[in-house]
Amino acid sequence: MNITADKVKQLREKTGAGMMDCKVALQESAGDLEEAVTILRKKGIASASKKAGRTASEGVITSYIHPGSKVGVLVEVNCETDFVARTKEFQDFAHDVAVQVAAMDPRFRSREDVPEELLSREREILLGQLANSGKPDNVKKQIVEGRLEKWYTENVFMDQAFVKDDSQKMHDFINNHIAKFGENIVIRRYSRFKLGEASE
Amino acid sequence: MNITADKVKQLREKTGAGMMDCKVALQESAGDLEEAVTILRKKGIASASKKAGRTASEGVITSYIHPGSKVGVLVEVNCETDFVARTKEFQDFAHDVAVQVAAMDPRFRSREDVPEELLSREREILLGQLANSGKPDNVKKQIVEGRLEKWYTENVFMDQAFVKDDSQKMHDFINNHIAKFGENIVIRRYSRFKLGEASE
Repeated sequence: MNITADKVKQLREKTGAGMMDCKVALQESAGDLEEAVTILRKKGIASASKKAGRTASEGVITSYIHPGSKVGVLVEVNCETDFVARTKEFQDFAHDVAVQVAAMDPRFRSREDVPEELLSREREILLGQLANSGKPDNVKKQIVEGRLEKWYTENVFMDQAFVKDDSQKMHDFINNHIAKFGENIVIRRYSRFKLGEASE
Repeated sequence: MNITADKVKQLREKTGAGMMDCKVALQESAGDLEEAVTILRKKGIASASKKAGRTASEGVITSYIHPGSKVGVLVEVNCETDFVARTKEFQDFAHDVAVQVAAMDPRFRSREDVPEELLSREREILLGQLANSGKPDNVKKQIVEGRLEKWYTENVFMDQAFVKDDSQKMHDFINNHIAKFGENIVIRRYSRFKLGEASE
């Protein structure tokens, strides 16, 4: 089937993927733009997990001050090349990350950053709440792990819903951008200040 | 002597002091504007040290990202009232503090924040450098304290020279603003990120 240059251009703008990838995806989707996006995204996420191990030492430091100047965030977002770091798209992406941290106040960056003793204490508390439930131990354990998943979505940056589109978790949002930029991306660190709160 | 309203206005704009204070200062200086500034500053600094003990829990969070986005700073600067916090002058002041931290990378906020063991180690090193100098111990001690003063001006925010006017130390710069705003001001905390540096 014949794919017009105009359609390829539209798909490129929508996804940031390369020209040949767009052409192939449009051929596979028989010219259907939405379907082609899905095809690219599937391929993209597949390639994102390959890229996630690569060293990311370039990037940007950016900040977001919430209107009123009572909450502010500083973030370091890394990618692999200064070329990508300088693009408006990458800077917009880093800005979204800073807004997210300001809005959702994550206590930890990823599950790996949650201290083991804090997890055990959470488990104990949740188990204690089920003490008089009369349920068998294996069921209790399942319920606890389910509630712990919910705890992650409240406290861990990577598991939180993206404030600008709550159909995505931050984990997905970042993987989509790894696919889009074709480079590994790491949210290296952040500071969030709220006026008058106890400092760490 | 007769002080014109125009001269009072000029002095107010220069110092931020109240109208009556400006009028009195101009009378004392016989209408000399520069002399009146000095008079107000002397009074101001006298009142600044009285104000320095008061609680400051209002203020702003602000940031400065150095062009190129490789260095960024987030600061919390406190004052006593939200009224002062909302003024452009206070926000400009907080911005200057953020620029200062970006440029000078202070390791500590004030002398009180320097850990005692780090100070003893510095003293030992400096004393070691004088081991073969043949000088008496009390002279060595004086030299060490002198060099320690220099170390403070390099590592401690309050002792560093203000980058926009190196005739002032940050300590003076802040005291002048305590006098200007008529409220205690506290540099509560800051974060400084440099791209790719080891995180704490």
